[in-house]
Amino acid sequence: ARPRVGYFFTGKTGSQLLTENLKKIVVRDYQSVPVVVQENVSVYDAIVTMFLEDVGTLFVIDENTHLVGVLSRKDLLRASIGKQELSSIPVNIIMTRMPNISVCTKEDRLLDIAQILIEKQIDAVPVVRQTETGMEVVGRITKTNITRAFVSLALED
Amino acid sequence: ARPRVGYFFTGKTGSQLLTENLKKIVVRDYQSVPVVVQENVSVYDAIVTMFLEDVGTLFVIDENTHLVGVLSRKDLLRASIGKQELSSIPVNIIMTRMPNISVCTKEDRLLDIAQILIEKQIDAVPVVRQTETGMEVVGRITKTNITRAFVSLALED
Repeated sequence: ARPRVGYFFTGKTGSQLLTENLKKIVVRDYQSVPVVVQENVSVYDAIVTMFLEDVGTLFVIDENTHLVGVLSRKDLLRASIGKQELSSIPVNIIMTRMPNISVCTKEDRLLDIAQILIEKQIDAVPVVRQTETGMEVVGRITKTNITRAFVSLALED
Repeated sequence: ARPRVGYFFTGKTGSQLLTENLKKIVVRDYQSVPVVVQENVSVYDAIVTMFLEDVGTLFVIDENTHLVGVLSRKDLLRASIGKQELSSIPVNIIMTRMPNISVCTKEDRLLDIAQILIEKQIDAVPVVRQTETGMEVVGRITKTNITRAFVSLALED
């Protein structure tokens, strides 16, 4: 029987509907613009770029603009308490490098990327497009994007 | 009429129920343990503490263990590209200090804290207990906690 209050009764509980809503969100809906640096720039310049661009993660690309590494604030902070001069170390010495990088595509579910961020204890996942020669970085997903999605879910109504 | 499928029909849509579920989550449900440092420790020692404790934010307390400041990775990274020796600068020179700190209690809604993290562009909010003489830090909420809540919402079902 269809209730008279103007809603369809779907035979589903609220939490089932919640799960469905959540699972429909894809990376494309919440991704941010990526910030990249070349692999030969110095750690000092990478830190400056991070502040100028106001991001917590930089993606490192080679001369063909393919993804080769990731730099987090944590990586840069670790380097900063080392003994070496920050302007003399290239970022490819301290970055996390392929293939030890989790990547995603625009079509992936945001939920799956949220799980990767938690399980791997990382701050960001690059959104990539696979080409014949390598991966191009087209976006980024961070815990900030997940937090935005969390807030939007609550305000959707 | 009560449908035969074993659920109550509440007269609410899925997204209304979602909103209600989300709004029921409080800070206490997801908070982490706080990591604190004294205000006279050096920036160098604070960075080392951050790595040893594996956190992205430190809370700064005075000699009465009351909250006086917050240190983010960003604050420490900024100091690391400055000209001064990291082991000679006390953290109270570079920290964000009271009253410019957003705080919360265990009973606050997680949703409200998520909104504060986004609006103020900060990484963490200390969970505090007000005493007669000042605030004691009893926990922390970061975007990692919000990401965990997001994942849990989806897996609840």
